[in-house]
Amino acid sequence: MHAEDRIDAALKRTIDGAAGPACPPGLAEAMRYAVFPGGHRIRPQLCLAVAMAQAGSDDAVVDAALSGIELLHCASLVHDDMPCFDDAPTRRGKPSVHLAFGESQALLCGDALIVLAFQTLAAAAQSAPRRAGLLLGIVSNGVGAPNGIVAGQAWECESAVALTDYQRAKTGVLFAAATMAGAAAAGADHEPWRELGERIGAAYQVADDLLDRFADPLAIGKPVGQDARYDRPNAVGEMGVDGASRRLKSLIEDTLDAVPACPGRDDLRALIAREAGRFSGRALEGRAAA
Amino acid sequence: MHAEDRIDAALKRTIDGAAGPACPPGLAEAMRYAVFPGGHRIRPQLCLAVAMAQAGSDDAVVDAALSGIELLHCASLVHDDMPCFDDAPTRRGKPSVHLAFGESQALLCGDALIVLAFQTLAAAAQSAPRRAGLLLGIVSNGVGAPNGIVAGQAWECESAVALTDYQRAKTGVLFAAATMAGAAAAGADHEPWRELGERIGAAYQVADDLLDRFADPLAIGKPVGQDARYDRPNAVGEMGVDGASRRLKSLIEDTLDAVPACPGRDDLRALIAREAGRFSGRALEGRAAA
Repeated sequence: MHAEDRIDAALKRTIDGAAGPACPPGLAEAMRYAVFPGGHRIRPQLCLAVAMAQAGSDDAVVDAALSGIELLHCASLVHDDMPCFDDAPTRRGKPSVHLAFGESQALLCGDALIVLAFQTLAAAAQSAPRRAGLLLGIVSNGVGAPNGIVAGQAWECESAVALTDYQRAKTGVLFAAATMAGAAAAGADHEPWRELGERIGAAYQVADDLLDRFADPLAIGKPVGQDARYDRPNAVGEMGVDGASRRLKSLIEDTLDAVPACPGRDDLRALIAREAGRFSGRALEGRAAA
Repeated sequence: MHAEDRIDAALKRTIDGAAGPACPPGLAEAMRYAVFPGGHRIRPQLCLAVAMAQAGSDDAVVDAALSGIELLHCASLVHDDMPCFDDAPTRRGKPSVHLAFGESQALLCGDALIVLAFQTLAAAAQSAPRRAGLLLGIVSNGVGAPNGIVAGQAWECESAVALTDYQRAKTGVLFAAATMAGAAAAGADHEPWRELGERIGAAYQVADDLLDRFADPLAIGKPVGQDARYDRPNAVGEMGVDGASRRLKSLIEDTLDAVPACPGRDDLRALIAREAGRFSGRALEGRAAA
């Protein structure tokens, strides 16, 4: 099965368990809408690829890990798009959840997706309590305070923050959770995998900052110009366009050096080079076209 | 140590771990504000009392369970009070989190408290992975879809729902999670403890419906008349005041019969009678005074 298909199948099983006939219909519909169709699913791809590069991967635990991480990412998009935050009208090329279902459903939908990530890990804990316990720590710390993506968003409410700290919390930690969760789900030591995730996340965020400046909103399915609109710390604002482009290229080179030794190292490096080429290429082309 | 002190000490350790110097200061302050000072802490009291009534309770795991449940309850209050939901200006006798810190911080604060509940269980999983895994399932299912309190809130967005189903999801399941988590944290079979929690939750919700009709908002620290304002299914609306009062008394009698056999059954029954007397007395007195 292709990685994309496996990820969507795992997410579908998870959502079906929560958003079935017993669930309030509006909430169920909003949850499906927020998760399908997906974006590039880069975090679960990364989690899966790291797991597959190890010996001893446990399929059920890997599926729980990659689903949990993607659900938490989707939840963050739903809440971030709300009027009290980014007030973004579109996401993945369609109306944001709060515009399609109303603000109260959007609030509950994000909450339900956060909790579903942990319900999914709980199911995995029945057969593999030790691995699931480890995943629970990796994933929850990548999302919560003081260092996870919720804290990253909260830095936007502060008057002063260093760009790299902000971007690490906003993006890097969930990428690091993805690589570490992939290793832990396969029974490998997860700590050596943190840096790889952080570096990919850092590159991804710089690419996202370039897209916010140059991309066609129809092509990326969400509004652009948000960093300037909300006066947020961002790589283009801080280093200029050329500086941010150079930084993106150098971060991607660093990334490939950071893949730890493992049985499937060569394949994993190839996959990371391909994914990084895709998102950085899009950002650098957007700049060239502008 | 008194139960109240133990609960607050456990919550304080948990919040200190997340809302320390590394956390964005506004988010940290909002998290503390949402959790301290507490209300009656009835859910963690129940969790602790059930755990203490067993043999073989594990202190660290019990503290994680009761903290997690109270954090999830506090998170639900923060999000429910927001303008897109109840638009409630006060909670626990002070301005709601969104009025004190702004809507975006309130949104993030609720998210961070949800995740912190699971970070807390993750810490317990290091020493007791099997018990923590079980707790993770009990607690997350009590909050998420299809049957947890988030789904209970989502029933408010639907045009038709049966009162008992709605109230079970909105309140009963988290009380059931509290009793079951107490048992599981002590290594006892948790399933026999579900019904006790559901019954206490049902009684508590009827009492809350009576308070919403009759209480002095200053005395209970939050607005009243919300059920009528939002045309929500509620016991007073459905059975009238006398019917709801009779139902409350009968639910409380049922509750005491539902305490399963355990080493500390007599003490536990006495504690439940005291707590139930407290919240039902307040509701019935409110009615008498009105």
